[in-house]
Amino acid sequence: MNHVFTLVLAGGSGTRFWPASRKDRPKQVLGMGPDQSLPLIGHTLRRVAELCPPEHMIVATGESLVYVTRQALPLLGPSSFIAEPVARNTAPCIAWGAHIIARRDPEAVVMVLPSDHHIENEPEFRRILSHALANAAQGTITTVGIQPTRAETGYGYIEAARELSPGVLAVDRFVEKPDQATAEGYVASGRYFWNSGMFFFRAADMLRAVEQHLPAVHACLQLIGEAAKRGPDAEREVTRKVFADMPNISIDHGIMEKLMPLAVVPGSFGWSDLGSWHTVWELGKRDHADNVGPDGAVFVDAHRNLIEDLRDKNKTARTVALLGVSDLCVVETDDAVLIMPRSRAQDVRAVVDELTRRGGPV
Amino acid sequence: MNHVFTLVLAGGSGTRFWPASRKDRPKQVLGMGPDQSLPLIGHTLRRVAELCPPEHMIVATGESLVYVTRQALPLLGPSSFIAEPVARNTAPCIAWGAHIIARRDPEAVVMVLPSDHHIENEPEFRRILSHALANAAQGTITTVGIQPTRAETGYGYIEAARELSPGVLAVDRFVEKPDQATAEGYVASGRYFWNSGMFFFRAADMLRAVEQHLPAVHACLQLIGEAAKRGPDAEREVTRKVFADMPNISIDHGIMEKLMPLAVVPGSFGWSDLGSWHTVWELGKRDHADNVGPDGAVFVDAHRNLIEDLRDKNKTARTVALLGVSDLCVVETDDAVLIMPRSRAQDVRAVVDELTRRGGPV
Repeated sequence: MNHVFTLVLAGGSGTRFWPASRKDRPKQVLGMGPDQSLPLIGHTLRRVAELCPPEHMIVATGESLVYVTRQALPLLGPSSFIAEPVARNTAPCIAWGAHIIARRDPEAVVMVLPSDHHIENEPEFRRILSHALANAAQGTITTVGIQPTRAETGYGYIEAARELSPGVLAVDRFVEKPDQATAEGYVASGRYFWNSGMFFFRAADMLRAVEQHLPAVHACLQLIGEAAKRGPDAEREVTRKVFADMPNISIDHGIMEKLMPLAVVPGSFGWSDLGSWHTVWELGKRDHADNVGPDGAVFVDAHRNLIEDLRDKNKTARTVALLGVSDLCVVETDDAVLIMPRSRAQDVRAVVDELTRRGGPV
Repeated sequence: MNHVFTLVLAGGSGTRFWPASRKDRPKQVLGMGPDQSLPLIGHTLRRVAELCPPEHMIVATGESLVYVTRQALPLLGPSSFIAEPVARNTAPCIAWGAHIIARRDPEAVVMVLPSDHHIENEPEFRRILSHALANAAQGTITTVGIQPTRAETGYGYIEAARELSPGVLAVDRFVEKPDQATAEGYVASGRYFWNSGMFFFRAADMLRAVEQHLPAVHACLQLIGEAAKRGPDAEREVTRKVFADMPNISIDHGIMEKLMPLAVVPGSFGWSDLGSWHTVWELGKRDHADNVGPDGAVFVDAHRNLIEDLRDKNKTARTVALLGVSDLCVVETDDAVLIMPRSRAQDVRAVVDELTRRGGPV
């Protein structure tokens, strides 16, 4: 019997991908990046189908996002979706997911995956995940650290210490996004890895860690567990009642940083968090002038631009022509166009804020 | 009886306004610039309605443009339109128009107007035109020279000499587009005016000038005139036959430069030839950051941009957001988007050429 479960974190409602992503249509349910044949969350589950049967896949999202998330994953049944009544960051969500899974299978080994990342080398990705799962199955909570390929200042890092077993290191500490010089030192040292946000554990181990480090969360889970014995309606009612009482804290701060030992399996499989339109350009198929765009786009004296056409594919073709501009992102949907330098891709929120201020639709 | 006739030159099929203008939908039939309540050619005729009755308005265009031109001027009947079988620049067209008008009214005084310019101060414009018409009615072919407001290198200039009568100067010479230093000298001298392309004459005077300076054109007009006596079918047939034989030459080179005297009435009425998208920005209503765009456009850290939304007004509203970009032109139609720096507005042809090279629709 396979005890592997997947808990997919799909609560994000990022604004960095406006106008593709909207409040009610977050990044993970969109086809984005190099392969738009599935939404990002669809790729996330497809990628691990060899490791985990579909009936062991649990998708955690916000109540307002259940509908679009289910639409994005038509092959999963309703019982695969759990909806946080309010967002409380990752620690309560993962603890709650582990609790639900443990009730279904007390021997469950869980992998927690972000829903919206891009992976280039999927066989290698699965090899690393299998390794992390095997390590977690021995009783050590485990994460995967991404071998850095550049001195990236946009990611958190994990510093590793001694080797615990072949391909598995002990985590020394988590560090926040560094400045450029620090990041360069990290990469040069060879002991630092990007924090991928993927975690692997036996459900029982996680629940013990929650009891020890987040007793308030533990207490809420106990109440939910008691209610569940009275049936799904009672469980839903109590969940809604207690969720808001949980502390708003990330799994890194709430649990991982306090664990000793915590294991990290280093991996290198062409990982990207697809963090902004700039990343979409980086991952895209470039022409001779390093432009990324749809067939039919016209580039004249234009270099290193991204054109992302996300309009309804059934509509009339539209020619996008860039003349004499470089390093721009141009994103088109049916009802909005965004134009900005790639270097401003982290600032898209400013547009969303302006639209919100005006009180119109965002 | 009013002998004033207007001959509007509407043969242009410019490419500098792609994607608004297309081969079969030239600039003059589009609503462009600050007042899009009418197409440019509609404004051209509306502006002079006080000076010339509608039945004296003749619109000269190309055969392939008659349909769209008539659609743009629904108040004019079919006899107001004359179609050049082939384009032969302005001299044959104006001579032909003068010939047609002279047959209708031998005492006609004609004003020749480009179809696609913008005029800010219309009462002053009419005052200057009346002055030029009055001068032409005395027997001197007359043009209007625009008082330069900057050292523009994109226009031709007229150098004026002595005063012929109050507000009327003798033309000394026409000069082609100057370089920057020369243009600055012209403006400083006070003797140079922009060549507006507007001409005023008694039809009989123009036909005499054609006979003297362009005898080949004169000969063709004689043949057309003979045929016209046999009826409109014969006239059409002969026109089609002889038009291709006319020399391809501008009225400036073919006639005006050879006239002595030629009169120029200097005027200052907020004239623009609406030569490119850059001009549309110049004439537009700017916000505090000098952006020109539709209501609802979002500008964040964006300066001196133009957004021109020419999509079907019945379609869903679309938010165009510019973040961190400056001095761009963004032009949207239903089937194309053009993005370029304002400084490249003269180079739009490069995009049209690329589309033509690909063999698709332009």
